[in-house]
Amino acid sequence: MRFTEAQLQRIRPLWDAMLAHPFLIRTRDGDLPDRTFANWMQQDYLFVEAAIPFMAALLPKAPHAHWEPLAGVIQALQKELRLFEERAAAVGVDLRGAPASFTCHAYVQFLMATAYQRPYAEAYTVLYAAEKAYHDSWRVVQQGLDPASPWHPFVENWAGDDFAAYVAYLEGELDRLAEQVGEAERERMADLFETTTKYEIAFWEMAVEGGGWPGTEGGSGEGVADAEEEE
Amino acid sequence: MRFTEAQLQRIRPLWDAMLAHPFLIRTRDGDLPDRTFANWMQQDYLFVEAAIPFMAALLPKAPHAHWEPLAGVIQALQKELRLFEERAAAVGVDLRGAPASFTCHAYVQFLMATAYQRPYAEAYTVLYAAEKAYHDSWRVVQQGLDPASPWHPFVENWAGDDFAAYVAYLEGELDRLAEQVGEAERERMADLFETTTKYEIAFWEMAVEGGGWPGTEGGSGEGVADAEEEE
Amino acid sequence: MRFTEAQLQRIRPLWDAMLAHPFLIRTRDGDLPDRTFANWMQQDYLFVEAAIPFMAALLPKAPHAHWEPLAGVIQALQKELRLFEERAAAVGVDLRGAPASFTCHAYVQFLMATAYQRPYAEAYTVLYAAEKAYHDSWRVVQQGLDPASPWHPFVENWAGDDFAAYVAYLEGELDRLAEQVGEAERERMADLFETTTKYEIAFWEMAVEGGGWPGTEGGSGEGVADAEEEE
Amino acid sequence: MRFTEAQLQRIRPLWDAMLAHPFLIRTRDGDLPDRTFANWMQQDYLFVEAAIPFMAALLPKAPHAHWEPLAGVIQALQKELRLFEERAAAVGVDLRGAPASFTCHAYVQFLMATAYQRPYAEAYTVLYAAEKAYHDSWRVVQQGLDPASPWHPFVENWAGDDFAAYVAYLEGELDRLAEQVGEAERERMADLFETTTKYEIAFWEMAVEGGGWPGTEGGSGEGVADAEEEE
Repeated sequence: MRFTEAQLQRIRPLWDAMLAHPFLIRTRDGDLPDRTFANWMQQDYLFVEAAIPFMAALLPKAPHAHWEPLAGVIQALQKELRLFEERAAAVGVDLRGAPASFTCHAYVQFLMATAYQRPYAEAYTVLYAAEKAYHDSWRVVQQGLDPASPWHPFVENWAGDDFAAYVAYLEGELDRLAEQVGEAERERMADLFETTTKYEIAFWEMAVEGGGWPGTEGGSGEGVADAEEEE
Repeated sequence: MRFTEAQLQRIRPLWDAMLAHPFLIRTRDGDLPDRTFANWMQQDYLFVEAAIPFMAALLPKAPHAHWEPLAGVIQALQKELRLFEERAAAVGVDLRGAPASFTCHAYVQFLMATAYQRPYAEAYTVLYAAEKAYHDSWRVVQQGLDPASPWHPFVENWAGDDFAAYVAYLEGELDRLAEQVGEAERERMADLFETTTKYEIAFWEMAVEGGGWPGTEGGSGEGVADAEEEE
Repeated sequence: MRFTEAQLQRIRPLWDAMLAHPFLIRTRDGDLPDRTFANWMQQDYLFVEAAIPFMAALLPKAPHAHWEPLAGVIQALQKELRLFEERAAAVGVDLRGAPASFTCHAYVQFLMATAYQRPYAEAYTVLYAAEKAYHDSWRVVQQGLDPASPWHPFVENWAGDDFAAYVAYLEGELDRLAEQVGEAERERMADLFETTTKYEIAFWEMAVEGGGWPGTEGGSGEGVADAEEEE
Repeated sequence: MRFTEAQLQRIRPLWDAMLAHPFLIRTRDGDLPDRTFANWMQQDYLFVEAAIPFMAALLPKAPHAHWEPLAGVIQALQKELRLFEERAAAVGVDLRGAPASFTCHAYVQFLMATAYQRPYAEAYTVLYAAEKAYHDSWRVVQQGLDPASPWHPFVENWAGDDFAAYVAYLEGELDRLAEQVGEAERERMADLFETTTKYEIAFWEMAVEGGGWPGTEGGSGEGVADAEEEE
């Protein structure tokens, strides 16, 4: 069985929990407070931005054949940032209006530490898992979101054909890398696949529950969505 | 004003919140459930272990005069791990009995990403802030903990004279580094000082509230301390 | 005085020695054996290729405003590789026909070690010095090379207006970075400026004298140019 | 066949050329000018010093079981530096009296770039190859050097039983690592084994021929040994 297939099967309950997250379901159903979506936009903008140095840090460890694709992803991420900026302007969200949440900060540190410290196949696993998670997650939203929704361009971006092709490409490359490494490294890749999924879930959770740092004012007890609903 | 003095003054409310954290106050007063302390021990053991590669990653960026002190810290950390193992054996805690909590994992990623991506003076700021936080925190515990407590050896380690001298050394070196860099880097150092303090608070919070990953089973809603208290 | 101006002035004799190197003078005068130029092409192709991971490794340390320019340089380098391939095909040179020479290998290690280990302003100094060296060197060749020469496209590339504008941009940015750092780091930048220039001279020297590894067969005693001339 | 055995067999002519290098043979026979040995001492002191950040950069990529041994090597290197200082004082050599030669500088860049960019098993190959080369090389010298020679303590250090045990340990660990990785990585390890050997030969060559930078004053044409012999 291919590595990616085996991993998706192994952590199926976790992956399903991600796809059933209230953020996705409520966005799909048009039931999510605008302020919660805005909170997610601010944090994901910071995350997409931080993905650029992550891609760059992967490149020096990559086989030559991956250099152009990785450079291409950097350009795609820059285009994605423009999408956020265009959507934010359309709905009046200030993308620089909030500092990185604990979860956003932590996830970015995980990307960079992995890119620097781990071999390429392990870091590439994190790239694949994060992109696959986004594709599958927004396909959930796609199944119900009103095409007139101001958030629909995000669906078109991540659930669309171009992104599907990109994720399929990453999947093929990751399966090939997994075949080439030894068993011990393949196990570390499997661990990173699971850890990345847990960070993805934590990210959706942060979008709904609020982005404070644990134990400080604005911590996890002061969810943005809850605050919204109490108004 | 020295850099460290200025920073401690600037983030005083945050620092004070850290020193007033329930984990420390309740440990000092002999009022913390054993299971909560055991939870902290398991996570801090993983953290101290992870500090070894952090120190190693700092060394190639350090001035020559810091090489021996940094190598010395690696040895001190190895000794600290022995302290955990000895205490754990004494009270029947399995140090390998729990996976890294979300906060522990995130904090370790922050250490490694900083060591790799940032210049030395910035990464050294994180080292100082983390060690200073530990020294001050355990001095709070020292003010009341029963010397017969099984946790007293931790107080002796981090609140003791040797550790005080080590923190004072780090402080002097960090102040010197801060004088040598430009204003923009000094501001990034200040940011990292604050961020490290927030990770420290999050760590105490995790010890009390439980170490799950947000949005997954065993997440933040299932605090270890709470579970303990319900028994 | 601006940092770059001061450095070019400080190492003037070294810079002038580089610009007076026989490889440049003889290329300018149409007096260089084809085989020597082919030797340089093979090695510089490997070097340009290796500059891509160098640029990528710089990006995670760069201020945000440099991300797009650095990504742009990666694209420019890919275009430069196409120029080599087109020229090599035109004159029948096999770009993969030779392993990296000692000097080429060493220079590439210097780029990568610097990008990983040093702060951004120091690594950026190496980038500037290498690009400035190329611009000035090929302007020497431009002053005499027959426009019908098969090597003229290299002159157009590195001595041309676009490259001049790129080098001027790097210069302005490096001067700004040099203003922002402390004195100790500025001195390390100055050292790296000089070291890069010495690697550049070593590279021209290798092109003429042959690319062996010292002490092994095909070592420095068996210059390609000399061999050519004996025929 | 074990990996190390296979590699030593594969590059046997290169390894034998290293062991037959004039620097070793003439040192063994008491026939090397003092100034040439002093030149080597100055450069190797810089190299041993630079090996400390190399070891440190390896540690964060190493399996836990290697952390203590690697920290131990850092201590051994510090002790080795004391040996150089003691010998230098005994014979009146100024260890800080010369800048890094081209070859010494290049070799150090190779160590650091490898430690940062490559997976652990590849970087560990460089460590093994360099230490094995030293052990075998000084055993050649051991076979004839007058025990009263001021250089004999170097023989005792690198040709002695403790160092032999250390190299045997590295060999066992490298063979184990080589078994665990995939074929593609094992081939990159083999390449690095060969490249390290070529740097080792270049280092002996530099000691004899002089340490200038190619194409600059004091370049390879002005060997220290030759200068000595002309006196």
